[in-house]
Amino acid sequence: MEHKLRMSPEQVLAEAVSAVARARGYTDDVEFSPEDASRSDFDFMCDVLQAAVDNGAGTLNIPDTVGYATPVEWAERIRSIRKRVSGDYVLSTHCHNDLGLAVANSLAAIQAGARQVECTVNGIGERAGNAAMEEIVMAIRTRPDTFSDVETSIRTEELARSSRMVSRLTGYPVQFNKAVVGRNAFAHEAGIHQHGVLNERTTYEIMDPSDVGQGESKIVLGKHSGRAAFKDTLSKLGMTIQGDALNAAFTRFKELADRKVQLTDADLEALVAEEMGDRVMATYSLISLEVRSGSTTTPSADLVIRVEGEECAVSATGDGMVDASCTAIKKATGIVGRLTDYNVMSVTGGVDALADVVLSFESSDGVKVSGRGLAADVVEASARAFISALNKIARVRRTGEDPNAVDRPGHLG
Amino acid sequence: MEHKLRMSPEQVLAEAVSAVARARGYTDDVEFSPEDASRSDFDFMCDVLQAAVDNGAGTLNIPDTVGYATPVEWAERIRSIRKRVSGDYVLSTHCHNDLGLAVANSLAAIQAGARQVECTVNGIGERAGNAAMEEIVMAIRTRPDTFSDVETSIRTEELARSSRMVSRLTGYPVQFNKAVVGRNAFAHEAGIHQHGVLNERTTYEIMDPSDVGQGESKIVLGKHSGRAAFKDTLSKLGMTIQGDALNAAFTRFKELADRKVQLTDADLEALVAEEMGDRVMATYSLISLEVRSGSTTTPSADLVIRVEGEECAVSATGDGMVDASCTAIKKATGIVGRLTDYNVMSVTGGVDALADVVLSFESSDGVKVSGRGLAADVVEASARAFISALNKIARVRRTGEDPNAVDRPGHLG
Repeated sequence: MEHKLRMSPEQVLAEAVSAVARARGYTDDVEFSPEDASRSDFDFMCDVLQAAVDNGAGTLNIPDTVGYATPVEWAERIRSIRKRVSGDYVLSTHCHNDLGLAVANSLAAIQAGARQVECTVNGIGERAGNAAMEEIVMAIRTRPDTFSDVETSIRTEELARSSRMVSRLTGYPVQFNKAVVGRNAFAHEAGIHQHGVLNERTTYEIMDPSDVGQGESKIVLGKHSGRAAFKDTLSKLGMTIQGDALNAAFTRFKELADRKVQLTDADLEALVAEEMGDRVMATYSLISLEVRSGSTTTPSADLVIRVEGEECAVSATGDGMVDASCTAIKKATGIVGRLTDYNVMSVTGGVDALADVVLSFESSDGVKVSGRGLAADVVEASARAFISALNKIARVRRTGEDPNAVDRPGHLG
Repeated sequence: MEHKLRMSPEQVLAEAVSAVARARGYTDDVEFSPEDASRSDFDFMCDVLQAAVDNGAGTLNIPDTVGYATPVEWAERIRSIRKRVSGDYVLSTHCHNDLGLAVANSLAAIQAGARQVECTVNGIGERAGNAAMEEIVMAIRTRPDTFSDVETSIRTEELARSSRMVSRLTGYPVQFNKAVVGRNAFAHEAGIHQHGVLNERTTYEIMDPSDVGQGESKIVLGKHSGRAAFKDTLSKLGMTIQGDALNAAFTRFKELADRKVQLTDADLEALVAEEMGDRVMATYSLISLEVRSGSTTTPSADLVIRVEGEECAVSATGDGMVDASCTAIKKATGIVGRLTDYNVMSVTGGVDALADVVLSFESSDGVKVSGRGLAADVVEASARAFISALNKIARVRRTGEDPNAVDRPGHLG
């Protein structure tokens, strides 16, 4: 309090009261949240919480801002708040994962009476992240004996797909051994376990993979599929696109299908996600890219790119072909800065899968953006990702909007 | 028991007794572990455990084989076993992460009296993995108030490096928001948090990044560095290599340094790890690779590879340049099979970083191997990784050894 807010306890209390009262002027649904509840003075915090309820807060959200709590003490804290603070409110928990305990602490809070859980898909969030939604949901569902008085209305069979989408949009890979949504979460490697599963599934599986959407991919479309089949398949996957977006996605689909025989639903998800991401007005667009490299050749790239309507041909060399391509793109656009992150995922696994590249770029004037690109070839995918990032920079410069609003997920507490 | 072992309770008890007694014939340090202790009949399990102790087991390891337990009930189970089973033994806990609770359950077990924790670096292991060692260690260290009667002798400043090494060797990426060892574990994105940290570090940091080895990289070596500086730097990083291995690593270092100005310690770690991995007798080695691709060109690769001492030149086309290169390598070696996994990490982030490719391959006769390759160019790194995988297949065929012993981490229970 003294380090961060530079206010006395009385000032903090008064501010809390007036903020809640003011919020109630706009809505009946006011949530109040005292930061760092795991290390705060408990008595004072309860006074503030009581004042918030008395002035109209309907939800009290208790955050373990630095991920410091352990399950037993977190449950105890939630239980004590319920006892101490009277009134009609929902208790909420918001846990961070710095010690790897965010999910366990959230579940402990539920057992202690919390009825709102602040959590995120894949557990993304500040530092080591927040509690992973999919793990909490599946713990409640898998252990009805332990969580007998609560349920979620989450459609669990969408968990795996939601996880893939969030991973793709943020550029944060999901580790293979991530609970519930990791790609190995249901893989039995050890022979002794495989034997057990073949005899009786419940020997080693407490969840059914299809319950979380980790079933077999229902394969789908090939190079001979038409626009109607394409649109129909997308809508079965829950993706509705029309008009120009549909045309653009279909064109990219045909290009990719010409190289790959079949596209799985994961491929299609990735494709549509990329097209949707690029619906911002594009200042730059890729016309063609030719690259070559070799043990005895310097990696080089010949690029044709449309810059504000005009085609521009540039060539460059680099440490590798990705570096050469990006250097050529920098030359053509005149944007200076550095790549701060670069990540390739194969959409479906295997070397003939589509490469899904996510990268982060920081321009010399401090604008941070990310870009994604999808292609059968990893270098082309990288160039597409870089161009998509630079389009965001161009948008910031054109519109003068807040650079941090362009490409940053909201702060999660 | 009936599904998997097809034995009666009496048979299981007799088998346990005779197995422990037999093991004691070889060593004084015998650990006994009843599988799936979270769902087993508790009374019967205690009878078996007591019999194991009575026949000389010094450690009783209690596994939550399917990751079914929650912290409160797991602590209760450990506590009950301590009460019920008498004798001089160490209680151990072995938790799986299917519901995201492995770390919390392990810590709960410690609080209930367990004094051995079976855990893994990065939490790797069957399905969603085992308890993550680094999170358990740092929870104990960060919360001495809660874990007042235990300590570990882990040198925590090696945690980040160990994590990188395991990630590289297994090909399992560590997610950015992984607690303790993820690369964002200490990154403050939100402006409001950055402000807090600048004023007073403990506002948002409960651990010091340097305590877990997540400090700044001390940069290191460039193209003008000589062999002595190279060796010296490696030894500072705790890597001792000599003779042929040193020569080979130094040659690769010079090749890479010619393309990149500076190599960080993470680059060096990756380089040496790759060279060490390739110390198996190589049946195949890359002589040269030339690749090209473009929007209007079919991706193609010209490869020269040494196959059992003879140089062999092949060309191939593919969906992308990686696919073309791997097809050429398959042609030259005659090995048939499919890539089951493909993953690119940039060693230090940024597009001019070294590409570290890890892939998995399954030959048509069912041998599963992984391979790693490092290069400034992502396609070359992929080809190196594929060749290193095929060298393992060749070794299996040459020596007739158990294919699963070649490349699989031990089963972790």
